[in-house]
Amino acid sequence: MNDSIQVISKFALQGLETQALRDAALAAKQTLESGSGAGNDFLGWLHLPSSIDEQQFQAIEESAAQLLSECEYVISIGIGGSYLGGKAVIEALSNHFAAYRTDGGPKVLFAGSNIGEDYLYDMMDLVRGHKFGIIVISKSGTTTEPAIAFRLFKEMLEQQEGKEFASRNIVAITDARRGALRRLAIEEGYATFVIPDDVGGRFSVLTPVGLLPIAVAGFDIRALIKGAVEMEQGGDEQVLDYAIARNALYQQGKKIEILANFTPRLHFLAEWWKQLYGESEGKDHKGIFPASVDFTTDLHSMGQWIQDGERTIFETVLSVGDQQHEVIIPNDDVDLDGLNYIAGKNVDYVNKMAELGTRLAHIDGGVPNLLITIPAVTERYLGQLIYFFEKACGVSGYILGVNPFDQPGVEAYKKNMFALLEKPGHEEATAAIKARLKQ
Amino acid sequence: MNDSIQVISKFALQGLETQALRDAALAAKQTLESGSGAGNDFLGWLHLPSSIDEQQFQAIEESAAQLLSECEYVISIGIGGSYLGGKAVIEALSNHFAAYRTDGGPKVLFAGSNIGEDYLYDMMDLVRGHKFGIIVISKSGTTTEPAIAFRLFKEMLEQQEGKEFASRNIVAITDARRGALRRLAIEEGYATFVIPDDVGGRFSVLTPVGLLPIAVAGFDIRALIKGAVEMEQGGDEQVLDYAIARNALYQQGKKIEILANFTPRLHFLAEWWKQLYGESEGKDHKGIFPASVDFTTDLHSMGQWIQDGERTIFETVLSVGDQQHEVIIPNDDVDLDGLNYIAGKNVDYVNKMAELGTRLAHIDGGVPNLLITIPAVTERYLGQLIYFFEKACGVSGYILGVNPFDQPGVEAYKKNMFALLEKPGHEEATAAIKARLKQ
Repeated sequence: MNDSIQVISKFALQGLETQALRDAALAAKQTLESGSGAGNDFLGWLHLPSSIDEQQFQAIEESAAQLLSECEYVISIGIGGSYLGGKAVIEALSNHFAAYRTDGGPKVLFAGSNIGEDYLYDMMDLVRGHKFGIIVISKSGTTTEPAIAFRLFKEMLEQQEGKEFASRNIVAITDARRGALRRLAIEEGYATFVIPDDVGGRFSVLTPVGLLPIAVAGFDIRALIKGAVEMEQGGDEQVLDYAIARNALYQQGKKIEILANFTPRLHFLAEWWKQLYGESEGKDHKGIFPASVDFTTDLHSMGQWIQDGERTIFETVLSVGDQQHEVIIPNDDVDLDGLNYIAGKNVDYVNKMAELGTRLAHIDGGVPNLLITIPAVTERYLGQLIYFFEKACGVSGYILGVNPFDQPGVEAYKKNMFALLEKPGHEEATAAIKARLKQ
Repeated sequence: MNDSIQVISKFALQGLETQALRDAALAAKQTLESGSGAGNDFLGWLHLPSSIDEQQFQAIEESAAQLLSECEYVISIGIGGSYLGGKAVIEALSNHFAAYRTDGGPKVLFAGSNIGEDYLYDMMDLVRGHKFGIIVISKSGTTTEPAIAFRLFKEMLEQQEGKEFASRNIVAITDARRGALRRLAIEEGYATFVIPDDVGGRFSVLTPVGLLPIAVAGFDIRALIKGAVEMEQGGDEQVLDYAIARNALYQQGKKIEILANFTPRLHFLAEWWKQLYGESEGKDHKGIFPASVDFTTDLHSMGQWIQDGERTIFETVLSVGDQQHEVIIPNDDVDLDGLNYIAGKNVDYVNKMAELGTRLAHIDGGVPNLLITIPAVTERYLGQLIYFFEKACGVSGYILGVNPFDQPGVEAYKKNMFALLEKPGHEEATAAIKARLKQ
């Protein structure tokens, strides 16, 4: 496969890769594919792309078309894996200034991924008097952040446009049978999609969780899935290379992986990646700390630290082949800024030299460098990238020796929050935390 | 001072603070204030807030008023310290959905902080046919990123609105005497402001570099400076507490500081903070790695790692007292989502319990916790916070034993980039890098 992701690790490994590590990676891949490892009830994502049929595509496209036909804004409500995947793909494919534009289709907004009172106020103020729809994404329907946002916007929509409009333009993505949101959807007659039982949140972007918001935003979910299928069926070499390299580096004391892009629109793809790897590997007091930078912007902030700080990092550069548009640097007769030596060149030509120059500078500074290339930022290549990162994450987690598919630590803050909020059923915890705070 | 920033370090230090470290911090503060340390030709920021007089405020306000009177968009062109400070304050004070709104004043866009060809294309496409102005911020006028953006938008503006409109609505913030941008401004008759010689980029937000874009966006620069003066004159206790705590933790092996906010609008304040600390301390193969998270959003991505990953981190929570607006959680007779126990409460009440619950959970998980509180997100308190972080950075860097005011590592990628671009004067480097790439 030439027309796809490539992983180039020669500036990262330089003798670090051992036969033992490659054997461990092959064993980890075998464990993953045979479903014999920890967390093996959450492997639904592994053959998900190739399992999506015409009927599923059509259902999502029809639901998107309904929202598009009546709504100026569509509010996608969800947190974590029910937020980041869709957000990442939409940002990657959108005009950088889509929010400012008054042309174009309906605008997808994201709520329920924080508890910001001013954030919610400002969003309610924005959509007041405008027709809007809601995609509410929650396995249980009771997760605090999205549940608060959904209460607010459901009430607002029903009051503003009436119950019928609301029922027609609220879509619930939730458990197939159980939970508060499923019950509500049945009672209110909402269209629904299913979050499969065997797909965890951070692996769910290629289910309706990600696909519906992406389709509403106007992007081609079939091409996205096509790319994912390509990697499902032929991406194992790249998967192994990446999983091996990062574990080799971690074993050598490289504790922080910095995912660097030179493409502003990939910012949220890095945020999605941070959840995928941070939540999968950060447990049992181990795991690489995932960080991200947007270059060249952050060469003028984190660049100094990366070049000369503690030598406990490695860098993974996400490199994009082609831009969508062309901007030529103009000539200037006076040339006070001294840029005429690059006049007539594409802006991206300069960016590519910055990228190569940065990689060499960081390698010289003692920062091992991995390179992941995609031909362009399109639905297809994003689909490849998503599946590639997902599978490499499963393999990498098994090499590390953790269960890459659970997230027990996420409950800790929730327990305290429920105790502090005096949630029914948490009386003992409430008493304990109050006593603690009095100390 | 009760009406200001507080630093609470009792959950971070717990016996770690030694007399030796406090003595070192006092000595570092003395070195800073007496101007006797490394980088002492870059201490102009230290007494900057109290030095700004009525004439300077008026000049900035008049320049902003000129741009406001004729422009629908104002493009602020700069990178690093010529970008992040203004961006951070504007984002912190703006409506969360300002970009989507068609009411309100002119919109401030940021260019020249990346080399994204599609980014520039999309911005040019947005402002085409609309009246716009430019604030160009560059000490030399030859920094590659902003120079490319300025060439493009200057040419576009002159072609679109004519030379006179352009001269009236381009403002240059640059060196007092030298450099390409100063020369151009004189030739073209642009209004200008000075970047003081003794203020480095990452300490420049309270100079016209930050103040003009902030004023254009409609915010009160006098209140911002008032807050900074308050900390200049009475913030030393907080400054010492923060500088001591983070050095104590670093000496104990806490290599990563995670700045956490529970207030979405503070996202870019954390980006500004990352430049300030990363660029000041990340040298000589040492320095805390600065990272940031937006909670509760990122409790559902990085939360697992923070709770259970390697115990090499500490967390600094930036806590905000009051919200600007009120949103009450509505009651629901059916209560399928089980939220009625918090119906009638403000959304922010839940957020505050999430914040406290998170701090306790992370402390229990082995993550030392620093707390920095501000009463609200207003100009005044942001001014306090900015000066507080700046002075604490100087003290902290001297404790660490580095020059907190240089950034030699930032040149490394530029040298390679110029060689690769075959910039005149870099012929030897070009030959060398070409030979290297052939290997």
